[in-house]
Amino acid sequence: MGTNQMWGGRFEEGNSSEVIAFNESISFDQRLAKQDLQGSLAHVKMLVHTKILSPIDGAQIIGGLEKLQAQLAAGTLQFSSAYEDIHMNLESLLQQEIGPVAGKLHTARSRNDQTATDMHLFMQEELGQISDRLVDLLKVIVTKADQNVTTLMAGYTHLQHAQPISYAHYLMAYYEMFMRDLQRFQAAQASADNSPLGAAALAGTTFPIDREFSARELGFTKVYQNSLDAVSDRDYLLDFLSAAATVMMHLSRFCEEIIQWNTYEFNYLELSDEYATGSSIMPQKKNPDVAELIRGKTGRVYGELFSLLTTLKGLPLAYDKDLQEDKEGVFDAVDTVKTCLSLFAGMLETLTVKKDQMAAALQDDFSNATELADYLAAQGLPFRQAHQVVGKLVHYGMDHDLPLQEMSLEQLQQFAPEIKADVYEVLAPKQAVARRMSLGGTGFEQVREQIKRAQAKLNGEHRQSISRNNMSD
Amino acid sequence: MGTNQMWGGRFEEGNSSEVIAFNESISFDQRLAKQDLQGSLAHVKMLVHTKILSPIDGAQIIGGLEKLQAQLAAGTLQFSSAYEDIHMNLESLLQQEIGPVAGKLHTARSRNDQTATDMHLFMQEELGQISDRLVDLLKVIVTKADQNVTTLMAGYTHLQHAQPISYAHYLMAYYEMFMRDLQRFQAAQASADNSPLGAAALAGTTFPIDREFSARELGFTKVYQNSLDAVSDRDYLLDFLSAAATVMMHLSRFCEEIIQWNTYEFNYLELSDEYATGSSIMPQKKNPDVAELIRGKTGRVYGELFSLLTTLKGLPLAYDKDLQEDKEGVFDAVDTVKTCLSLFAGMLETLTVKKDQMAAALQDDFSNATELADYLAAQGLPFRQAHQVVGKLVHYGMDHDLPLQEMSLEQLQQFAPEIKADVYEVLAPKQAVARRMSLGGTGFEQVREQIKRAQAKLNGEHRQSISRNNMSD
Amino acid sequence: MGTNQMWGGRFEEGNSSEVIAFNESISFDQRLAKQDLQGSLAHVKMLVHTKILSPIDGAQIIGGLEKLQAQLAAGTLQFSSAYEDIHMNLESLLQQEIGPVAGKLHTARSRNDQTATDMHLFMQEELGQISDRLVDLLKVIVTKADQNVTTLMAGYTHLQHAQPISYAHYLMAYYEMFMRDLQRFQAAQASADNSPLGAAALAGTTFPIDREFSARELGFTKVYQNSLDAVSDRDYLLDFLSAAATVMMHLSRFCEEIIQWNTYEFNYLELSDEYATGSSIMPQKKNPDVAELIRGKTGRVYGELFSLLTTLKGLPLAYDKDLQEDKEGVFDAVDTVKTCLSLFAGMLETLTVKKDQMAAALQDDFSNATELADYLAAQGLPFRQAHQVVGKLVHYGMDHDLPLQEMSLEQLQQFAPEIKADVYEVLAPKQAVARRMSLGGTGFEQVREQIKRAQAKLNGEHRQSISRNNMSD
Amino acid sequence: MGTNQMWGGRFEEGNSSEVIAFNESISFDQRLAKQDLQGSLAHVKMLVHTKILSPIDGAQIIGGLEKLQAQLAAGTLQFSSAYEDIHMNLESLLQQEIGPVAGKLHTARSRNDQTATDMHLFMQEELGQISDRLVDLLKVIVTKADQNVTTLMAGYTHLQHAQPISYAHYLMAYYEMFMRDLQRFQAAQASADNSPLGAAALAGTTFPIDREFSARELGFTKVYQNSLDAVSDRDYLLDFLSAAATVMMHLSRFCEEIIQWNTYEFNYLELSDEYATGSSIMPQKKNPDVAELIRGKTGRVYGELFSLLTTLKGLPLAYDKDLQEDKEGVFDAVDTVKTCLSLFAGMLETLTVKKDQMAAALQDDFSNATELADYLAAQGLPFRQAHQVVGKLVHYGMDHDLPLQEMSLEQLQQFAPEIKADVYEVLAPKQAVARRMSLGGTGFEQVREQIKRAQAKLNGEHRQSISRNNMSD
Repeated sequence: MGTNQMWGGRFEEGNSSEVIAFNESISFDQRLAKQDLQGSLAHVKMLVHTKILSPIDGAQIIGGLEKLQAQLAAGTLQFSSAYEDIHMNLESLLQQEIGPVAGKLHTARSRNDQTATDMHLFMQEELGQISDRLVDLLKVIVTKADQNVTTLMAGYTHLQHAQPISYAHYLMAYYEMFMRDLQRFQAAQASADNSPLGAAALAGTTFPIDREFSARELGFTKVYQNSLDAVSDRDYLLDFLSAAATVMMHLSRFCEEIIQWNTYEFNYLELSDEYATGSSIMPQKKNPDVAELIRGKTGRVYGELFSLLTTLKGLPLAYDKDLQEDKEGVFDAVDTVKTCLSLFAGMLETLTVKKDQMAAALQDDFSNATELADYLAAQGLPFRQAHQVVGKLVHYGMDHDLPLQEMSLEQLQQFAPEIKADVYEVLAPKQAVARRMSLGGTGFEQVREQIKRAQAKLNGEHRQSISRNNMSD
Repeated sequence: MGTNQMWGGRFEEGNSSEVIAFNESISFDQRLAKQDLQGSLAHVKMLVHTKILSPIDGAQIIGGLEKLQAQLAAGTLQFSSAYEDIHMNLESLLQQEIGPVAGKLHTARSRNDQTATDMHLFMQEELGQISDRLVDLLKVIVTKADQNVTTLMAGYTHLQHAQPISYAHYLMAYYEMFMRDLQRFQAAQASADNSPLGAAALAGTTFPIDREFSARELGFTKVYQNSLDAVSDRDYLLDFLSAAATVMMHLSRFCEEIIQWNTYEFNYLELSDEYATGSSIMPQKKNPDVAELIRGKTGRVYGELFSLLTTLKGLPLAYDKDLQEDKEGVFDAVDTVKTCLSLFAGMLETLTVKKDQMAAALQDDFSNATELADYLAAQGLPFRQAHQVVGKLVHYGMDHDLPLQEMSLEQLQQFAPEIKADVYEVLAPKQAVARRMSLGGTGFEQVREQIKRAQAKLNGEHRQSISRNNMSD
Repeated sequence: MGTNQMWGGRFEEGNSSEVIAFNESISFDQRLAKQDLQGSLAHVKMLVHTKILSPIDGAQIIGGLEKLQAQLAAGTLQFSSAYEDIHMNLESLLQQEIGPVAGKLHTARSRNDQTATDMHLFMQEELGQISDRLVDLLKVIVTKADQNVTTLMAGYTHLQHAQPISYAHYLMAYYEMFMRDLQRFQAAQASADNSPLGAAALAGTTFPIDREFSARELGFTKVYQNSLDAVSDRDYLLDFLSAAATVMMHLSRFCEEIIQWNTYEFNYLELSDEYATGSSIMPQKKNPDVAELIRGKTGRVYGELFSLLTTLKGLPLAYDKDLQEDKEGVFDAVDTVKTCLSLFAGMLETLTVKKDQMAAALQDDFSNATELADYLAAQGLPFRQAHQVVGKLVHYGMDHDLPLQEMSLEQLQQFAPEIKADVYEVLAPKQAVARRMSLGGTGFEQVREQIKRAQAKLNGEHRQSISRNNMSD
Repeated sequence: MGTNQMWGGRFEEGNSSEVIAFNESISFDQRLAKQDLQGSLAHVKMLVHTKILSPIDGAQIIGGLEKLQAQLAAGTLQFSSAYEDIHMNLESLLQQEIGPVAGKLHTARSRNDQTATDMHLFMQEELGQISDRLVDLLKVIVTKADQNVTTLMAGYTHLQHAQPISYAHYLMAYYEMFMRDLQRFQAAQASADNSPLGAAALAGTTFPIDREFSARELGFTKVYQNSLDAVSDRDYLLDFLSAAATVMMHLSRFCEEIIQWNTYEFNYLELSDEYATGSSIMPQKKNPDVAELIRGKTGRVYGELFSLLTTLKGLPLAYDKDLQEDKEGVFDAVDTVKTCLSLFAGMLETLTVKKDQMAAALQDDFSNATELADYLAAQGLPFRQAHQVVGKLVHYGMDHDLPLQEMSLEQLQQFAPEIKADVYEVLAPKQAVARRMSLGGTGFEQVREQIKRAQAKLNGEHRQSISRNNMSD
């Protein structure tokens, strides 16, 4: 096994093929080919701009890089495991195109700042796409909510019927969660918007480079202010992975509920055939595979966050090979989040809620007990006492299989003489929802307000997304 | 065992003492007593303001709550495990103070929004304090950097000497990391700045409350827009824990280096006696216990982040008892981060860097090899070729125990005829540092610029911190 | 602040109170007081046995330690934060009891092997108790299974009705899981059964000690074979935490199902009042708090496993202060697992399964579809074809709200002429269960066999547990 | 998009290509092709044996499966994403080979027990290989130890020189750790040795199968006793991942030390060129990439353990699609552990320890201070007092740059009149090591004993490994 061409000068013996296979990253960092070429182009333009490189050399290198870009786009670029990473591969390919002048591209640059630059570019672009998919999901939620303001369902605590709510209100809770996720991903994108290019190996360079020039070329609005930090910082990846873990957590909650609602017992919804699968042995089943798999993939993304945190723990400055482990988990998390968001939106959009079933479940579940307690409190009973009285009434009702709204006024008054005939108005589920008019409450008018605010906000996001997409190309 | 006073209405049998001990949270949520009283005061003022409560009842309740505040401040408030949580304890104590009217305090409120309010208030305050400690640490770093611009040391990659750098430059890399942490904690504080009060159990309330009134009373600038989300959201805690995990990761890296530099072998620094400990059996030792323990506590905080992520996975809306597990880990993470930041700042401030040792390590380590490669590249050699030549020179030097700067011009020219007498200027470590004048590089002037920018920024932070502290009391 | 008495010889300055508070462990390692005294007694007896200590000195020290044991048992032992850990505290208390001769106890010992010994003793004892609680839970499961062999329920996959099964069969699946947990905890106990005493600080001692003597005194059956390993090994704690994480995972699955079965929709069970709680605002609710909290505490234990794994990553030999972080998480995991096992057993024992509801859910759920496919396959149809045919029948049945067993023979034969009148026998849920007589299947006789095997095994465990308890005191 | 052939009977609409891509597992579970064919062969033989299948049908199917085996071995088997998993792919390929009779293979089987069987077979085989690699590493350690019994080095605590030890003793500490790992992997292998085949979908089957027959065919010594457990159990994967996390933790510690020892400052070892790499910009460097990357991959494996734990949390019985997430992480952990063990063994075997440098570091480091304290204690001073005296001597020595062994007897006696001329014998590092003759101590004879015990044990393992390999083919 021969010694490495790039750094083998002082070595007498080469690495074994097993070691080479262990150290290589081309098998996964070839995903960064596009970004690496972008980065090299910006670098060489800067070298010419600052007269470190002659215009003639520069033109040759630029021409060569553009050829590689075209080959990459055409899918004809071939990577070889003989070169350990994407940087060495592309440098070697460039050399084949334009000869020894290719060696000048690496002036005032190191693989340390080069790989960091690639990854920052990659994250910027992917985070833009994740944000777009989140916006799409948010729109599905708001559209569904808009269609279901008066759809009644049980609101749950402890997975017990607690109080009747609007299904739209339930949906809008997830709107809030995913809107926070959007902000988190946008913050992660701002973290990634920082150019490490020009930090060189760790200490900057003696060449009179212009880091702001190359940063602008690449669409970065900030440059790292400290070269050691530039090559060792992985915070922007942690920011992404934390946001990814949180969005997966939200999805896992929503999926859990879809899986439950899809049961024979709840029977609250019908999944579109498109998003359900059958069983190879039990033909009657309609399995919520997509929801289950999204829920299961939560573990995957949590694990990827924990991986990187573990890898970074206790690492001395500035660069250690451990940092090569920053890529595969992030790539997988990017793909997982994108796919899950997109599939979840499709599943939600196409599922049918069984309104009758949902409403029926509110008839004999005592979920209007709070209404009665509030009614009594409004008559002047201290809330705690009102609560006690209603507890006894519920106990009596359960023993006699008698919902509160079906008890006679006499029966009710035996427990609380304060109760009047107007109580029945209060006990209807629809009224229980309608009357919760506190800000952010489930009252129909309140829910309509939520939806309006959301629609206005999403229209704003839509405009941002358009400009984001223009930027990232 | 009697049935619970607060919710026992429909229950025939009470819980066993083991179950009560399992469900209780008073042993840890008593830490929220101050916030719970604040929240109750704001709530009752709002009830009066909206005429849900009469001014007379309101005055009585306010008087009672203020007495409890005074007792809490005096340390005379006694909590009892007979009441499962801080809310029940304080309600019961209030009842003892003012009688049955205390029962009216809970009108239009539930423990679900109450506990969420307490925790939001708590986090806002603690995040302010963490930010202040971070600012203190940042100031120590900048002050130390300012004193060490021309202190030379080896910059490391792979824990190998790579290139000479300024110790101030090294310090300023950590400035960048902790400054990002500060932004993360401030973002977490913004997440916590959201009032859940008035969401009631999950669906809002039928009482005509004014959630913005009580939010203002508590210093919140936003209110939750959806009541289900208000009681189930724990994102603001995840935002904190993610930021906490990241700052601990940064501390673990700095500690790792302090531990290494404190060895017999590196011998780069002397810890102040105040921050070191001895051995019960080996009297010669000066152990960097504080640095080790901070590094070790990284695991603790990572674990707390993953605990909460795990607990939240797959939870259906709106409230599940699992969520009670949100507190202990967060409390511990708050304390850990605060203590570690404060001790680390003290340790860094009082340790002495051994400048002579650091400088001496640069004499025969070949860390000026890149200088020579850059020198050759500047003479027109393609960088890759320059690199190869220098590799051979280093190999030769190591075999003959001869640093590059001690080779004769003749010796150097045997490898590269391009080398001239001016090469020795380039090979001096001090020059190697001084000449790295790219933006963010280790060149002395660049480092001075970094420090100036940081000082200006920290002066701004200082002013913010003053107003933050005024706000949080 | 004065310098530390135990190791302050070469220090000029003492630690600040903040540093002392950070380094101390007495606030939590006082839990090891019993083990520390046991360890010291064994050590001093060994010192006398090997004539390193005179019988007179030995008798004095033993007398002093026994007094401390008595005080500990009586609850009169006072620990002071002036001494950083349990070892220093007890040494100081011993000194108060018997004067300077106390100083001889530490001959041929270090805090490194002392703390390791304490923790090994602690884990051995606690693991015995955890195993006992697991055995108790296993017995509850088997007893309940024994009472429910013919109780029918839907077996689920994807939370969809798949095939009818016996409730006892369901219970016995958990028997298998918890039985594996028992083996894991027993293996962890075997890991902890290893005496580090005599490893001293890291390298052993020059005194002619007899490590096997002191190990026997403490009930250990093995001694560490390498002194560096003895003081740095935390594998036995990871073995415990891995087992703890797995048992919590199993509990979380069982709790999830209890929570679902306790819903209005499933309505499969009634929790005993003792293990349920009410709501402060919604009196109709009967919340499965215990099941939810156990499920929630899964996160806690997972976090503790990951904490320790993180802390241990990359630690150089032999002892680093980071290792002090090994205790609090483990203590908490021990308590959590013990409490959860005990409460879960009680909850399971006292809950009532609603057999009628469970059986009713099998009437129109098409969970006998596989029976029909198997029936057709037994008539010679390739299984894949049988499956297709039944799929169409189910589709038809769902469209017409007609369970398979309620279709006429004619209707059935339109889809598959192979069907005969004997098909109705096959379609009854009870038959579907009874006929699954493959080993480990849900057939009643098979389930009875499972239960018998389990009972025999638990009787064996019972005898072991008795001897385990004798041993650990 | 057509409906799925295997389960599409009742579905009207097919899945979108995005959903199909999300649900598929053939992209990764094709790794189980060999095991799936083994499992099918065992299953069909059992079906013939129990007369469920005619010998003629059986022979046809067996013939077809053997053809597929041959194609797999020859690398000519083509998998298609049109079939979602390895089971469907192979069934389809079998159908192409032998026509409709292929459909009978799936009699009395489901994908649930089929996939579980494949994974159990896979783990058994891989765990055997991991054990073999561990044994290889253990042998390297013991061989190196055998060559270095009298090589002296500083034993460290807190990364400070504590006491002189033998390098062989240091190595043997890792022998102990990896020997425990071996036991853990063997226990995981025993967990995997359990046949789920015949559990069918979840409840067993009505066909008169013989599960013990097929288990024997596959080399399993146990069969699952409960069919629900058989399809839902993933404990054996957690057992593997816990063991994997622990062995990576051990490797990370060893790597950390190799990285430190490889520094300019420690300079304790020289890595073989084969296991080191250079820098693209700094030609003087010899980077310990392999050690760093192994250390970094610790995070990867920790993450994979946490992923699976998260995925399993709260899953209801018996099978949920979430469980499909059990494979990729495990596959990656298997590969990572195998590669890291093998590379680490090679790196350790080929690195050179610089004995002179190690010995030199003991000359002026006061690591013989404990010797003096022990010497004084042996003269009758209470240990605590001896410790104080030595502390003062060290302080004096450090101030005057005077190691203990270079102080005059007079100087020593000024601090402790008990000191005699024989003290110098005690102070020589070699003596300090030689005299630590307690069991498991670093004394040369003790270390030789450790090595002998280890050699005897490894010879035993060697024999087991041979039989293990025979078994697994």
